[in-house]
Amino acid sequence: MTLIPRSFERLASELQRLPGIGAKSAARIAYHLLRSPKEEAERLASAIAQARESVRRCSVCNTLTEEEPCAVCADPRRDASVLCVVEESSNVVAIERTREFKGRYHVLWGALSPLRGIGPEEIDVKGLVKRMIPEIKEVILATNPNVEGEATALYLARRLRSNGVRVTRIAFGLPVGGDIEYADEVTVARSLENRREL
Amino acid sequence: MTLIPRSFERLASELQRLPGIGAKSAARIAYHLLRSPKEEAERLASAIAQARESVRRCSVCNTLTEEEPCAVCADPRRDASVLCVVEESSNVVAIERTREFKGRYHVLWGALSPLRGIGPEEIDVKGLVKRMIPEIKEVILATNPNVEGEATALYLARRLRSNGVRVTRIAFGLPVGGDIEYADEVTVARSLENRREL
Repeated sequence: MTLIPRSFERLASELQRLPGIGAKSAARIAYHLLRSPKEEAERLASAIAQARESVRRCSVCNTLTEEEPCAVCADPRRDASVLCVVEESSNVVAIERTREFKGRYHVLWGALSPLRGIGPEEIDVKGLVKRMIPEIKEVILATNPNVEGEATALYLARRLRSNGVRVTRIAFGLPVGGDIEYADEVTVARSLENRREL
Repeated sequence: MTLIPRSFERLASELQRLPGIGAKSAARIAYHLLRSPKEEAERLASAIAQARESVRRCSVCNTLTEEEPCAVCADPRRDASVLCVVEESSNVVAIERTREFKGRYHVLWGALSPLRGIGPEEIDVKGLVKRMIPEIKEVILATNPNVEGEATALYLARRLRSNGVRVTRIAFGLPVGGDIEYADEVTVARSLENRREL
C-alpha cells in the first residue's frame, strides 16, 4: 500500500533538483502546491513553461533575453570598445545595477573547472574570441572571485592578450569565495573601478 | 531599458510564494530553470500541473490521494474504531512510517489560530464531527505540539467528549535519541510531568 500519491513523489523529486532544495524542502513545497488554490499551482507551472519558452540567449552576448539581440547589445549608446566577460547572465544584472559600466558584455555560461570536466570548449570561449575585432580596446574579466573564476580569468588573459587587447580583472574588493550575484552594488562598483592590468 | 526578461520576473515572483523561498532563492532557482536543459524545466512544470490534476483529497479522511477513497480508508483491515486526527496530510505519512497505528485518520487541513482568523469553520471540524458514529471508540488528537495544535486539541476534546468517545492526546516528552541538556524547558517540564511507572 502506498500512501504517498505517485504524482506527489514525482513532483517532490523534480523539486529536489532545484538548487538549495533538499528532500524536506521539496516535500514541503510539494504539499504547499497541492494544498494551495489550484490557480496558484497552475500559475507557477505556466510561469516555468512560459519563461522557458520565451527567454533565450542573446545571439551576440549570450545573456538571457526575450528580445534578439538583448537590450544592452541593441543599445547604440553602449561603448562597443569595452567588453565585460562574466560567467552568468545574473552577473550582467548585478553589474548593470551599479550603473558604472557603459560597455558591453559577454556571458561565458560557466567557468573552467578541470575537476568537473569543464574546459574551454564547455564555456563560450569560442564566441568571445570571435568577438575580438580591432574596435575592442579592453576586455574586463568579471568572472567570480573564486578558484574557477580566477582560473578562467587567467586562461582568458593569456588567450586574449595575443590579440593586442588590454585585458583587466575586476578588483578583489569582492569577498573571496563569494558570488557576484549576491554582492551589494557598492562592492561590485568598487571592483569595477579598481580593475587592473593582467 | 529592462535587462531582466519579464517572464523571468514573473517566474521568480511565483517561486517566491513557495514556503521557505525568499527573493534570492527564487532568483537562483529561476536562473537555474532557464539555464538547465529545457526538458528539466518542462518536467517540473508538468509534474506540478499533473500532480495538481490527479491528486485530490480523500472524501472520507481528507488526506491527499490519487484514488478515491485513499489507501487507508479503502483498507478493510484498518481498525475503524480508532480515529487519529492530524493537521496535515504529511502527518499521516509520518505516523504511517512508524507502523504502530492500525486505525484510521482524519486530516483537518490546519489548526485553530484566532490571530490568523482560522476558526473551527476554516478547518474540517464539521467533517470530523460527522464521522463520530457509535463504532468509534477512541479519537487520538495528533495535532502539532505547538500553540495552535494545542488549542485545536483542547477545542476538539471539549467538542467530541460529549459524544461519549474516549479522546486522547499524543504524548509530549523528550525526543528519543535526544539529549536532556539541549532540550527546551517546556519539553523537559512536560517529560517530567508525564513520567510513568517503570
